[in-house]
Amino acid sequence: MADLLGVLVLGTGQMGTGVARLLLKKPGLRLVGAFCRRSAHSGMDLGKVLGSHSELGIPVEDDLEGVIARTRPSVAIQATCSTVIDAVDEITCLVRNGVSVISIAEEMVLPAAASRDLASEIDQLAARHGVAVLGTGINPGFVLDTLIIVLTSVCSDIDSIVAERVNDLAPFGPTVLESQGVGLTPAAFSQQVEAGRVVGHVGFAQSIRMIADSVGWEIDRIHEEREPILSTVTRTTPFITVEPGRVAGCLHRAVAYRDGRPVISLNHPQQIQPHLEGVQTRDRIEIRGTPPVEIFGSPEIPGGEGTVALAVNMIPRVLNAPPGLHGMADLPVPAAMLCDARRLVDPSRPARRHG
Amino acid sequence: MADLLGVLVLGTGQMGTGVARLLLKKPGLRLVGAFCRRSAHSGMDLGKVLGSHSELGIPVEDDLEGVIARTRPSVAIQATCSTVIDAVDEITCLVRNGVSVISIAEEMVLPAAASRDLASEIDQLAARHGVAVLGTGINPGFVLDTLIIVLTSVCSDIDSIVAERVNDLAPFGPTVLESQGVGLTPAAFSQQVEAGRVVGHVGFAQSIRMIADSVGWEIDRIHEEREPILSTVTRTTPFITVEPGRVAGCLHRAVAYRDGRPVISLNHPQQIQPHLEGVQTRDRIEIRGTPPVEIFGSPEIPGGEGTVALAVNMIPRVLNAPPGLHGMADLPVPAAMLCDARRLVDPSRPARRHG
Repeated sequence: MADLLGVLVLGTGQMGTGVARLLLKKPGLRLVGAFCRRSAHSGMDLGKVLGSHSELGIPVEDDLEGVIARTRPSVAIQATCSTVIDAVDEITCLVRNGVSVISIAEEMVLPAAASRDLASEIDQLAARHGVAVLGTGINPGFVLDTLIIVLTSVCSDIDSIVAERVNDLAPFGPTVLESQGVGLTPAAFSQQVEAGRVVGHVGFAQSIRMIADSVGWEIDRIHEEREPILSTVTRTTPFITVEPGRVAGCLHRAVAYRDGRPVISLNHPQQIQPHLEGVQTRDRIEIRGTPPVEIFGSPEIPGGEGTVALAVNMIPRVLNAPPGLHGMADLPVPAAMLCDARRLVDPSRPARRHG
Repeated sequence: MADLLGVLVLGTGQMGTGVARLLLKKPGLRLVGAFCRRSAHSGMDLGKVLGSHSELGIPVEDDLEGVIARTRPSVAIQATCSTVIDAVDEITCLVRNGVSVISIAEEMVLPAAASRDLASEIDQLAARHGVAVLGTGINPGFVLDTLIIVLTSVCSDIDSIVAERVNDLAPFGPTVLESQGVGLTPAAFSQQVEAGRVVGHVGFAQSIRMIADSVGWEIDRIHEEREPILSTVTRTTPFITVEPGRVAGCLHRAVAYRDGRPVISLNHPQQIQPHLEGVQTRDRIEIRGTPPVEIFGSPEIPGGEGTVALAVNMIPRVLNAPPGLHGMADLPVPAAMLCDARRLVDPSRPARRHG
């Protein structure tokens, strides 16, 4: 069989280390290198960063050009950031060096929704260098867009789409909790939303545009709202205690209008321990169409584990894709990769590979 | 914009007429002709066959070569049969004349599961003639395969997959009811299963192989079982009355084994009026993996309406596909088509089109 497919991981946070752990287990792939922006991990052996007792012989490096030149990966998984503007330098460096990229930066799921120019630049550069670039993740990237799109395919007509994802932020640390306003007073929550420090969910614009592009709807405008979820009980996690009357999280909603009518409504309340007030975590998709379609899953598909799995499972799809920038909706149906990865890669496909 | 995309429909039964009705409503498409095997409809105007008062100016014809030559369609939707052996002559005729094909014959979802030779013949012929061929439908084709495959993509590992689809046969006529043994005594049911007259569901082999191929599992063997669903109450439809103690339908199960272990279990009980015994119609998919994933929808996605919509929605995917035989799992994510169909067709793609 062909050589192992070399994979480079960018990022040593919760997602980056999750991806690295999974890559180490997957037959047909070889984790060839690790890049990080944080100097705290730079120079350490990746095994140590993963909390293992044994070294892996993979140093964590902060010189991206250097680690690419030394390790010659086929594909890189980027888990360093959330926005296109923050992701683009690493992506262009990888692409210029002939490396395909799977990014879990939220905005990279459909980068044109954040910056048409940067998306076009990435697309053209990737096409020129014979590699493919994809953004993916659970949300955006799967539950509130790809899965909805797939379900629309059984409908001959659609009036509107309503979906919600209710999750639990209890496992998350201070950075995430602050971004959702957890622990604030209602007044402070409003101020922080105003100031752009409570951001809610990143990705509604991407999900809505993915759905609209796939079914062929032109969207006039998207209205987003962020409301505090006030706790009526005491909620405690390892990182915070929220007293009754304080904010347990952020209910972030987005509604897309077409010809003045709401056609896509996405709701994503993110809070700590919703179960303490009888709220079960869940994913729910309702397509009001012909025929009507509704699916429900509880608990929700976990964001962290799911994003790590998706990023790794998309490796063969990206290596088989034509050169350029791609989205989940224009690649073949995604699937788990439960065999040697090389079996799923078509050697005749165009994307360049170092092997 | 480009010329309307000409579509030919094959079949004037429940599915064929459903497809024709939907094609008449979809912008960008033109229903150019209708073929049927039944001489009863041959020569009639399609409008009359559809139960309309006005004529459509589309004669129903039983000469396939003739209708192709006269109407020059880009794509045909085949709704005439269930098996590959029964579908292949019409498909090869269409392909030889440069027409792409979407078939709702159950076995065409993955024809190699029924006949490797015929599948390979269709693939090579389609490649030679620059057209694409796809099999699709709700089941097989979507609920118990494509949707499962999509959901596996969030898993890093999978132990087993269990799915069920519970539907209601009340709307169906004698042919379908006989194929499920409705109304028989338990003893007669066993005899008819033995004799191959009670067949249960057609498509488990296709669905299982689609899933296994997508995730990279090698399946040792598939075990299928057909059991009678005995009624404890009187169940009545316009076509039949089933007394207590008689068969209300067929519980058809398929289990796929890998290394001796059951890894894919599909259950499809088909009966009339399950609600009379407190059974709700539903689709349920459970992936026992990392992470575990479970989704549920009730009522089930309707088979008839869903199959008609899927067949029409896949038109742009088939026209954009490389020449050859395709499955739902190797084409881009399916989606509803809610705009002018021509907007979704890439004019630079290879498949031949008459326009």
